[in-house]
Formats: sequence, C-alpha cells, structure tokens
Amino acid sequence: MTGSAPLPPQARKPRGLPDRHGRLFKRERELLEAVSGVYQRWGFEPLETGALEYADALGKFLPDQDRPNEGVFALTDDDGQWLSLRYDLTAPLARYAAENWDSLPKPFRRTAFGPVWRNEKPGPGRFREFLQCDADTVGAAGPEADAEMVAMAVEALEAAGAAPGEAVLKVNSRQLLNGVLEAVGSEDAATRLTILRALDKLDRLGQSGVADLLGSGRRDESGDFTKGAGLNKAAIDRVLAFAQAGRGVRGETLASLEPVAGDTEQGKAGLAALMGMDRVFDALGFGSDRVRFDPSIVRGLEYYTGPVFEAEWAREVRTPDGEVFRVGSVGGGGRYDDLVSRFRGELVPATGFSVGISRLASVLSLAETETQTRSGPVVVLVMDKAEIARAFQHAQRLRAAGIAAEVYLGASGMKAQMKYADRRGAPAVVIEGSSERAAGVLQIKDLALGEALAQSISDNRAWKEERPGQIEVPVGDLEASVKAVLARSRGQK
Amino acid sequence: MTGSAPLPPQARKPRGLPDRHGRLFKRERELLEAVSGVYQRWGFEPLETGALEYADALGKFLPDQDRPNEGVFALTDDDGQWLSLRYDLTAPLARYAAENWDSLPKPFRRTAFGPVWRNEKPGPGRFREFLQCDADTVGAAGPEADAEMVAMAVEALEAAGAAPGEAVLKVNSRQLLNGVLEAVGSEDAATRLTILRALDKLDRLGQSGVADLLGSGRRDESGDFTKGAGLNKAAIDRVLAFAQAGRGVRGETLASLEPVAGDTEQGKAGLAALMGMDRVFDALGFGSDRVRFDPSIVRGLEYYTGPVFEAEWAREVRTPDGEVFRVGSVGGGGRYDDLVSRFRGELVPATGFSVGISRLASVLSLAETETQTRSGPVVVLVMDKAEIARAFQHAQRLRAAGIAAEVYLGASGMKAQMKYADRRGAPAVVIEGSSERAAGVLQIKDLALGEALAQSISDNRAWKEERPGQIEVPVGDLEASVKAVLARSRGQK
Repeated sequence: MTGSAPLPPQARKPRGLPDRHGRLFKRERELLEAVSGVYQRWGFEPLETGALEYADALGKFLPDQDRPNEGVFALTDDDGQWLSLRYDLTAPLARYAAENWDSLPKPFRRTAFGPVWRNEKPGPGRFREFLQCDADTVGAAGPEADAEMVAMAVEALEAAGAAPGEAVLKVNSRQLLNGVLEAVGSEDAATRLTILRALDKLDRLGQSGVADLLGSGRRDESGDFTKGAGLNKAAIDRVLAFAQAGRGVRGETLASLEPVAGDTEQGKAGLAALMGMDRVFDALGFGSDRVRFDPSIVRGLEYYTGPVFEAEWAREVRTPDGEVFRVGSVGGGGRYDDLVSRFRGELVPATGFSVGISRLASVLSLAETETQTRSGPVVVLVMDKAEIARAFQHAQRLRAAGIAAEVYLGASGMKAQMKYADRRGAPAVVIEGSSERAAGVLQIKDLALGEALAQSISDNRAWKEERPGQIEVPVGDLEASVKAVLARSRGQK
Repeated sequence: MTGSAPLPPQARKPRGLPDRHGRLFKRERELLEAVSGVYQRWGFEPLETGALEYADALGKFLPDQDRPNEGVFALTDDDGQWLSLRYDLTAPLARYAAENWDSLPKPFRRTAFGPVWRNEKPGPGRFREFLQCDADTVGAAGPEADAEMVAMAVEALEAAGAAPGEAVLKVNSRQLLNGVLEAVGSEDAATRLTILRALDKLDRLGQSGVADLLGSGRRDESGDFTKGAGLNKAAIDRVLAFAQAGRGVRGETLASLEPVAGDTEQGKAGLAALMGMDRVFDALGFGSDRVRFDPSIVRGLEYYTGPVFEAEWAREVRTPDGEVFRVGSVGGGGRYDDLVSRFRGELVPATGFSVGISRLASVLSLAETETQTRSGPVVVLVMDKAEIARAFQHAQRLRAAGIAAEVYLGASGMKAQMKYADRRGAPAVVIEGSSERAAGVLQIKDLALGEALAQSISDNRAWKEERPGQIEVPVGDLEASVKAVLARSRGQK
C-alpha cells in the first residue's frame, strides 16, 4: 500500500476514531463541564498542552525505529526527531511541570481535559481516541494532597450525576502491598508482577482461584494452565488476608490492615498515609459510603508509588430496548513520585486523578434515544420560497428570545419538511402559508404533543381535522407561544 | 538522529505547539463558548470528528512518499495507509457528510470546534496547532445559506465581544471575479492566479502598484521585479474598477458592480447571489455597518466556488506596556461546492464560516496581565500543619458556597504562603493562627485592596499595624465575608 491517492477518494473514517454528535456529544460536554468545574472550584488551574510531545518525553511507550507506532501514534518531525500523540494527560503535565518548575507557584495544581490517543487494536467500546479529564498536584508529598484528589473525585462524579453514595472512591496504597510482598519474601520483580496480576482477578476468580495463582498455578475451564507465583501456604494466606482486609467502614479496614501489613517499613508508611488521608476525609465530611479503603485494588503495575484510587459508579443504565449496562469503573489515579522527578534529577512528588469521559458519556447516553430528547432547534418551514425572508425574520425573533431556531433551506415540500424537523429533534415547527400571512397568524405545531395525541386518535379523518398539537397564534405572539410549547415539552420529560 | 531515548530525558516542548493556561486559556474557552453558542442557536448541530483522517480524504495537501509531512503531520497506520492530523475542520466535515449523506437530515447544518494542525515553520504568532470554530451547511445551494453564514458570523463576533459595527463581514463572489476575468479575456489559470494575487495587494500597494502588477510588472523599493499579468490598459481599468466598486452601502455597491461585472454569465450569477443575500440581510436587520459587499476581497485561491466572506474586527488592543495591536481579520469562509461532491460523484453544494479562535484569543488577552484579574482561588493558609484538617473544612465551606478555594499544601512559612497566594492570582487569603482558633475568629485578607492600600501608606510601621485590607471575622461568617471581598474586588474592575 502506498501513500498515493485513489481518484475519486473514498469517504471513510479511520478505525477506532469515532465521530460524535447529538446526545453523545452533548453528554461528553456536560460531563467535561461538571468534572472540570469541580476541579477548578478546588483551585486546580486549567492547562492545555499540544497534542504532540517528543516521544522521549512521553517515556512510557518509547517508539523504537523498527516499530515506531507501538502503543502510540508517532511520526518524525522535519528535523528527524520522533513526536507522539499524547496517550494520556499525565505525561504532558510531567513534561510541562518539569520544564517550567522554577517559575510555577508550588505546589502546582493543574486540571486538563481533552483527547488522548492509543495506537491499539480498536473494538466494541475500545477507541483509539477518547476524552479524559484530569487533576494533578505536583510538589506536595503529604497524604493531604492524595486525600484532596479522592474527595474531589467523589464530588466530581456527583456533579456528573451520581447520587450520594452511588459513586465510591476505593483507595489502596502501593506501599502497603509492597510491604506485604516484602514480608512474604517476594522481592523479585517477576514474582511481584505475577502476584499483582493474581490479586487483580480476585473479583472474577474468588479466593480459591487466586490462591492457586499465588501458589503453584491454575488450570481454567478451557484447560489452559497459568503458572503461579510459587508462594507457600503461609505466604498465600497472608497475601489473601491483606487483599481481603477491606471492611465497610474505613476505621475497621485500617484496624484489620495493621496485623497483616504493619510490620515492615513500607507497610508502616502505607498505613500512615491512609491514616493521614482518613483524617482529611473525616474533616471534609466524606463518610465510608463515598470513600472506602480497599486493599484489593491493584490499578496499574509500574506507575504508582503510594496511594492508588479507583472510582466505581454503581449505576445500571437501561437502554430503550431494555438492555442493561453497568457504569462501573469510571476513573482512577494515585501518587506517582517518579514521573516529574525523572526529568529534574530531584524528588518532585506528584499525585493525580483521571475521569474517563468518553466511556462514561457513552454508557450514560445509552439511556435515551435521539428523538426522545427533542433538543433540536425550532424549524421554521418555508411554504413559498419567494417569502423566505419572512421565515428568516421569524427565526431571528425566536433566537433573539434565546430559542434555537432555523429556517428550512432545502427545496422539498411540506411533508418532507415535517420529516426533516422530526429528524432534527425539533420540539416545534412554525408554519406560515399564504392564508396565514394574509390573516397575520402563524401555525405552531408541538411535535412531541402531536406525536402523543396522534397515537390516541384512531380515526384518520379526525386526525386531519383536529391537527393534534397544532395551534394558531397572532404573528406577534410567536416567541411567547413557542416558549409555552418548550416549557410543556420540557416539563413532560 | 534516531528514535532512541537519551537518559534522563529532557523536558522540552516541540516547536510551535503552545502550552496555554491562565487568561489565554480562559479567553479561548470564553470565545469558543460564545461563538459555538451562537452557531447552535442558529440550528447548527455539534459534531466532533477524530483528529486523524486518511490522507487521501483530506485531499488538499496529499503527502507523497518522499515528503509525507509536507504541510500536514502524517504517519502510516498499522495497515500501511497514510493518516494525517486534520489541517482544518472543513475537510473532516466533507468526509463525514459524504460518508453519512444518505442518513443525514438535509440540508445538514453542523458546527465544530477544536484544534487543527499545520506542519509549517512556526514563528512569532504562527503555531503548528491552533483552535478553530466552524459552521457549515451542506446541501443548500441558494444564497440564503450563504447569507445565513454571514449574518451568523456577525452575531458570533458580537457575542465574542465586538461592539455593533466593530466587526464587519465583507462579502465578495468568486463568480463575479471570474466574470470580470472572462470579460477581459484572461481565461488561462496562470494569468488568473497572477491577477488574484495582484488584487490581494490592493490594500498595501494601492491602485497604481496593482495596475503595474496587472500590466507589465512592478519593481519594488528593494529593486526586485515581479512579472505582471500582461493585461492591456482597458482590461486593467476594468479589473481595477471592479475591485474598487465597493461602496459604504450594499445597494450602492451592487449598482456600481452592475456595469463592470454584469455582462457575462458568471458575472450575472455572482450579482444575483449577492442580491439574494442582500434580501436576507435586510430581512434580518443587518445593515451596511455590519455586512458590506467588498469586491476587493480575494480570500484563498482554489477552494471557493461562489460567495466568499471575510471577518474584520476593527479594534485596537493596548497592552499594559502601552503597545497597540489591531485585531483585524479573525475569520472567513465561503461557498465550496466541490469539496463534498468529489467524494459523492454528484453535486453536493456547501458553504461555511470559520473563526480563528487561537489568534483572536491571543490578541484580546494582550490587554490584561495575569495578576490584574485576580481570578484565582481563595487560598486558605496553613499556620500549623497539625491543624490542616481545619483548613480543609474552611476551604470546603467556601466551595460549597460556590467560591473556588484551596488549602496551601506546601511546607513553607507565612511569607512564602502569601507570595504563593499572590502568584495564584488569589483574590483573598484566609488565616487561622492559634490565637484566632482560640478566639473562634478568622483573618481574611483582601489581596487586591491590600495592594492598593499598601501603596498609599508610606510609613512601614503604620502598614504593619493597620494591616491594610485585612479583617477579622467570626468563623461562622467566613462565606459571607469572603463573598463581600469578592464583590468589592469584582466591582472595582
């Protein structure tokens, strides 16, 4: 395949790069506004960086010369240096903070939102471009900065529509986990990784399945064998006791963590961090219904150095067809003290949280259809093209009154124009034929009401005569009459 | 240069990809919201496409295999096909409209905003990534669709802050120009291009300079010679008469265009289009102070097929240092009937308008400095780290009252915390030392007022005693007291 262009070109979208519009676009914007608004109210300063960064500054997925596109979209700049499209918003923040560290107010709180790109195999619900909304604090080492992230994340999800207690932030500490692994003598990186992967499956495989994976290994239903971490019985018990130390109430979780994780330096540090966070949660009034300590949370493998957070939204969304989807995990974060430090050659602690806006928007928007919302503009029909200027005047009057309105600009007749208005999700249409013009009146048709009424009228002739949902008003009453229709239509939902 | 990573990596931003924050970020968002809000009120439906498109679908700057990055940022997908970062928002719209044409409501009005990328040499004020906000109508051939674009553009710029009459849309027609060129017998593409380029310099070179470029050629002050279009005297006069047919009032411009452009088929069609637009402008109440016909507008060369528009914002912005910048051209558009058609193999007329948000934001934001705005959060200082939970409570109360507020999370003392608050653009700080805590009071310092008062107090001891702009309030009065400070501070500006 070469880069030469076929003629005529084909109109086709690259895989995994979605076109968004209608209720999905609207939902994305609402979520961004809600989440970003909370972050800003907590003092986080918006920052927008460019989409492209030097590949070596992104760091995590370094393109090599043979496979420059591995994991990221990469290209060479005109001076031969590799550039990559950002794969998250944290790496560009680390670059920015390190580059401008001397001149920044410290600690530096910043928020960012926008698309990120992953050059991975797309699939259902898996895109190569999606939106995130992040908050990060750089230069604050204490647990207060982590606690603030977590409390703010709860508030952000509640601003996004979660009922109190519906969105829960689950908090663990990488140090606690490291302490337990140290105590059971699993210090080598490969074993540690196997253990972390096993723990990540606790939800799905249950205690005995994970015990197998921590021990000699596990054979699944299909007969495939996964090699285990090779821990002895006592070590397995201890790791499982740790992962299952979570209780419904934060104080109880801390108490049950003490005996299994409190006997190493790292474990002590992890416990102290959670206790420090707990004090802030209490002060801010975030109870265990909104923030829990959960030692089963693993969350990423190489990246985090302290507390880790995961946001779980326990809501089921029912589609108009009756299918049910669970919102589930909608974001996460944690402390990553190495990411800015690696640029600066000095310790620059950092912590952050990210909401996956695209995923959240696409699940939440499953609940409604496009036409149900009728959030389109009012459409002014054009009965006589020679009088289109009058249609523009009507539309302009509606817009001046704050109502979205448009003039039908096509060449079709009444029936097609009505169909167009319906497709646009118009709440109402405005009609001015020659007799209306002569009489100084307008017809206003309430499309939602008309639809409802039409269903209740069985006689076709009665329907035509009654013109359900249609009213005749003096031209001067246009704005007030349309407002009344919109108020009714919105009240109905 | 290879793609291998130096260790440690350098924190550096690629050239021409700006980091935006503070007043610039804020201004960009305000402009996007204002412009996009107007577009949506006119019935334009938001669409967000992916950043990457197939290079052959973008069409204009096709990368070839030797220079894949010419003009655009391009890369190969994992299946070997070329992808490019969009260089505008029109090409992705054309792809989307063509791909989904059968299922779209027609005519299709859409708005879009977001970054576009140009792989060109960056310089002062010239970036490789910048924001645009577009509106386009696909599937409407008549001048009403063009007129709507122009009137809406005026409204959008007024929503963005232009006083009535300060932002003017200048309208010309490519067909008129073609008619004149046909009449003077300049039908070959090269001559036509030379003539268009000459006319584009009318502002700068004046009538005689352009006459030279239309005729045998012109030698500039540096001695460089530019070859002319080779027109004879009569042809030069006619082309100049056309380009200078603009009058202050639209009707007069149409009258003065009639004799110079009305005698060819293309000229007649162009004139008819402007007349049709004029009727809509009149109906909508857009006078010649906001929309003018200006035959000197050239606007791009190969792209447009009918009316072309250019937005001029006649405002001068004065920086705090007294430098003056002119806002000038802030957007443009026109009719492009070939762009969607080339995908479909059938005529799909289209017209659109684009506002250059980044440029507009950067000029407008020159007028104010970061600290002047004091739009940062209220900062709650921490006098005693052991009592930080109380600081979180104070901040949370302010946020619950809708006031952006943060707790100082660093390790420094009072003086550094005050400096931090100032750097953050905080309007106020909240202070609770041990004596305040004992007495159940808080100190609230109004930073803007304090700054102003400090300048009027010459005696250093008096300053310390009077603590300008600082008030002591009962803990329970926190929200009300800070609100009063904010109201004063905002009223002052």
